Amino acid sequence: MPVYNPPLRDMQFLMHEVFSVTDEFKAIPKYEDVDAETINAVLEEAGKFAVEVALPLNVSGDTEGCTLDIKTHEVTPPKGFKQAYAQFVEGGWAALSCDPAYGGQGLPFVVNQCLYEMLNSANQAWTMYPGLSHGAYESLYAHGTDAQKKLYLPKLTSGEWTGTMCLTESHCGTDLGMLRTRAEPQADGSYKLTGNKIFISAGEHDLAANIVHLVLARLPDAPKGSKGISLFVVPKFNVSEDGAMGSRNGIYCGGLEHKMGIHGNATCQMVLDEAVGSMVGAPNKGLAAMFVMMNAARLGVGNQSLGLTEVAFQNALAYAKDRTQMRSLTGTKAKDKPADPIIVHADVRKMLLTAKAYAEGGRAMSIYCTLLLDRELYHPDEKTRKDAGEIVALLTPIVKAFLTDNGHISTNACLQVFGGHGYIKEWGMEQFARDNRINMIYEGTNTIQSLDLLGRKILGNNGATLKKFGKLIAALIAEEGVNEKMAEFINPLAILAEQMSKFTTEIGFKGMQNPDEVGSAAVDYLRVAGHLMFAYFWARMAQVALREIANGNTDPFYTAKLQTGRFYFAKLFPETAMLMRTARSGSSALMDTEAALA
Amino acid sequence: MPVYNPPLRDMQFLMHEVFSVTDEFKAIPKYEDVDAETINAVLEEAGKFAVEVALPLNVSGDTEGCTLDIKTHEVTPPKGFKQAYAQFVEGGWAALSCDPAYGGQGLPFVVNQCLYEMLNSANQAWTMYPGLSHGAYESLYAHGTDAQKKLYLPKLTSGEWTGTMCLTESHCGTDLGMLRTRAEPQADGSYKLTGNKIFISAGEHDLAANIVHLVLARLPDAPKGSKGISLFVVPKFNVSEDGAMGSRNGIYCGGLEHKMGIHGNATCQMVLDEAVGSMVGAPNKGLAAMFVMMNAARLGVGNQSLGLTEVAFQNALAYAKDRTQMRSLTGTKAKDKPADPIIVHADVRKMLLTAKAYAEGGRAMSIYCTLLLDRELYHPDEKTRKDAGEIVALLTPIVKAFLTDNGHISTNACLQVFGGHGYIKEWGMEQFARDNRINMIYEGTNTIQSLDLLGRKILGNNGATLKKFGKLIAALIAEEGVNEKMAEFINPLAILAEQMSKFTTEIGFKGMQNPDEVGSAAVDYLRVAGHLMFAYFWARMAQVALREIANGNTDPFYTAKLQTGRFYFAKLFPETAMLMRTARSGSSALMDTEAALA
Repeated sequence: MPVYNPPLRDMQFLMHEVFSVTDEFKAIPKYEDVDAETINAVLEEAGKFAVEVALPLNVSGDTEGCTLDIKTHEVTPPKGFKQAYAQFVEGGWAALSCDPAYGGQGLPFVVNQCLYEMLNSANQAWTMYPGLSHGAYESLYAHGTDAQKKLYLPKLTSGEWTGTMCLTESHCGTDLGMLRTRAEPQADGSYKLTGNKIFISAGEHDLAANIVHLVLARLPDAPKGSKGISLFVVPKFNVSEDGAMGSRNGIYCGGLEHKMGIHGNATCQMVLDEAVGSMVGAPNKGLAAMFVMMNAARLGVGNQSLGLTEVAFQNALAYAKDRTQMRSLTGTKAKDKPADPIIVHADVRKMLLTAKAYAEGGRAMSIYCTLLLDRELYHPDEKTRKDAGEIVALLTPIVKAFLTDNGHISTNACLQVFGGHGYIKEWGMEQFARDNRINMIYEGTNTIQSLDLLGRKILGNNGATLKKFGKLIAALIAEEGVNEKMAEFINPLAILAEQMSKFTTEIGFKGMQNPDEVGSAAVDYLRVAGHLMFAYFWARMAQVALREIANGNTDPFYTAKLQTGRFYFAKLFPETAMLMRTARSGSSALMDTEAALA
Repeated sequence: MPVYNPPLRDMQFLMHEVFSVTDEFKAIPKYEDVDAETINAVLEEAGKFAVEVALPLNVSGDTEGCTLDIKTHEVTPPKGFKQAYAQFVEGGWAALSCDPAYGGQGLPFVVNQCLYEMLNSANQAWTMYPGLSHGAYESLYAHGTDAQKKLYLPKLTSGEWTGTMCLTESHCGTDLGMLRTRAEPQADGSYKLTGNKIFISAGEHDLAANIVHLVLARLPDAPKGSKGISLFVVPKFNVSEDGAMGSRNGIYCGGLEHKMGIHGNATCQMVLDEAVGSMVGAPNKGLAAMFVMMNAARLGVGNQSLGLTEVAFQNALAYAKDRTQMRSLTGTKAKDKPADPIIVHADVRKMLLTAKAYAEGGRAMSIYCTLLLDRELYHPDEKTRKDAGEIVALLTPIVKAFLTDNGHISTNACLQVFGGHGYIKEWGMEQFARDNRINMIYEGTNTIQSLDLLGRKILGNNGATLKKFGKLIAALIAEEGVNEKMAEFINPLAILAEQMSKFTTEIGFKGMQNPDEVGSAAVDYLRVAGHLMFAYFWARMAQVALREIANGNTDPFYTAKLQTGRFYFAKLFPETAMLMRTARSGSSALMDTEAALA
């Protein structure tokens, strides 16, 4: 059974020592009273909840899965999930970063992100029940009418009701323009929705009294394709204007998907049979409204893999210290034991450090990005908001794809540390790898993320946003470029930053001649961009660690941070050399292959 | 439900056009009558068996799994497995490459390897039941007494009985020197074995009348460690000298492992309670005898991933042609459809071609290696046998680790092609990824393979064997280096061959100073060696394809081969640049990390 120790020290290091979040918050009226003590106390309690309530249900939830009563269409999640959710609601965790106007606690998103990292480490499948509500909340918060807000936001805030995103249909996932669910306007201003959705996470369950479905559908007169999609809010139980729950609405679970992982979450086929809904946002502008929740969801998915990377690392580390097998190549280390603990072996250390470096780099990126989200939404200065929003938009596909691919690499490396035991369910390691596998797919596959990054966010504005991020890198290089101790962290960053600029221009030019050049390079490009940012965050973390050590701080945390940073630059960062080479090899090796793919 | 089309054309291409196996066989008396027609006819029938009998049980076997009756200790595999095995035995497939002296058909190993590739594509879990028997057969064939051979080999040959390898115990897998199972000598020359084994594939089932366990154990006076291990043959039912089956022996299944994949195979905890066995080979020389079956098993494991890579590719290709989603970046391709088939997208093609290039390169390596095994065992000339044996020893860890890692990459890429549907069990794609995951672990983890390659097979003889393989590469370069059309295949091979020689020397020198340098570089080194060999095989395949095209052959197979080869060199081979860089970054980034891994 896996163990988990919330990485509070690393979260505090990033928030307070690297990114100075409370300085940031002082400039944001909404957050000006949020101090370090509050944040730390909240996260300590959050960690306890993750360990004590969510973690014990992870393996059992995977083994048990969800069950559907096909007569009543009711879904029962694994044992304990309902009780854990009740404790979550009771503890006020659902409300953490919601608006006080609707009963929320008004804490910054960055704190909520840390809460969710820990919940994901403990139990990704369970965490998706409350997690999905945030997308519905954000979407209604940004695009809902006053009446919709009044009706739904307090209940989503408290967690009494949960939310879903009903987008995918069996014939369309990426290409939502093809969706067929119809919404017929009614005389009273409502709509009746009919159609079939698949892959609806937390689509049906007994954790909450009501489920607020955000559904994409077409109006009768809608234009074809993605310009004819509207967004609707469709509750499981109809709600009267005074908030009272009424009759069962015509939206129900027609089947549960049998999946590789996240067995504890109910992934539902949803049938809409004249389900009553109201429109969110403007007619035929549903995709824009949906993207509010989609962008939040993408950051959330990256955070899922961050959580799995961390917990997989912790368990593999514990196992590697405990399991004895063979002797060190440099001679016996544990003379009192029949063999050395396997952590003495170089490649075991490499697998462990891969997960550790990806977890800590990912946490830096996740916290940084969410902090910018707080700035984007609530900073008083418009230009600051706009600048922050641009970087968030740039980072979102990277957080989603880079962190989930790294989660795949890391959970599999940590599974491998266990040898044959890693393949056995009871140890829990193979579950981390299976649960993580969906993260590379849902909320836009990682290929889609790479096209969003390279096509829209980078080439779409001629690299302007990338240049903004480049300025942060340049400032760090200017600040630390003469510091000899920082050379091992700054030099590779500086080299890649320069290469990246040329690399981007190159692809841009080639892409103008032949758009398939962009499609061919995009996945490689995203990983290079991810490493550029990780290198930047690792340099900033090393900067703080070196400063503390120079000031006489003997906390081994800082030495550990430097060692992990050195590992990152020695063993993971060099992937960029390969990626730029394969990207530059162009599209013909992929596209001129009619015979090979016949 | 997955489909499968046996890759007979590619097997024939490799055997007859690239490696000219029948010329090879003419020099081996045992095989001199084996002609191309026979091989092709046998493999065509083998393909039918795989598709018609083994494939339909793959998804159901995964869903159903095995059940243990804890009272009788009997294990029931999934429905249909027993009947399929009976058909396998009836068809004579178990006997294919066994010695006619024991009722075998005496066909070359290379033919058997192709049979098993197809069986693994169709159903890895089922294939392990007959597959494990080969290790037991080889081990008894090489080290058994005449009486043991007479008793067991005819039954293993016919397939009436199956075999197992009982090595691992809960506290030792890699480090077999620590094993504890005891073997007490009896007055009649037999032994009574007592102990516990885990992870025993096909350890108990009802497919065969008897199960022949090859068990590692210690004699009472055995030296400590790996020099005190002996090998025993322990049948499920005792067998009298006349071959009649007698009483139930004290070896039984105490529990089934719950695993990530290969659910259809019974992975057993085996309890030995004074089980009667006889010794195979000399006392305390059990590891040497065991390595006969282990080496065969390692080639078999590489072959498992080859099979999964191929079948994953075929299904992803079919899906990519069928599934419509979005338009091509270069404009609409399928005007009659609401969207283009996803095969128009560059990254989808990259995922497909990755699996295809790894499957075809892997098949070349697997067939080449098994052909050398035939040469090693049966060529009349001693020096030829010895040379072949050295190359087989060099290739074995590469076949095991490189092909299984490539299987991981490929099955996951093919799963990704399906988007969300890849995560759903019914499509079968996630099963390929789960089934493949064990191949990187069992029969020696891939880290162990890399240490075997670099430490023993390369540095252990100062690179002499690598130089022998290098001569084959040099000969090809000399032959084709002036052929302009071959430049794109020959040049990267020539460059890497030169780098490899320097790279090896470098690690050798560093390793003499500090053995951890070998441990740190080994995994990267193995993948570079794998690519060197794949580059060689791809160049040889391209050579044949170019020759055929030059001769006016219009079979699109040859164009496909060239396109896939170009893809390999453009998109997969560049990994070597990264691997040499990370290997060269040395051991300190891994070993000087006490604080980071505290």
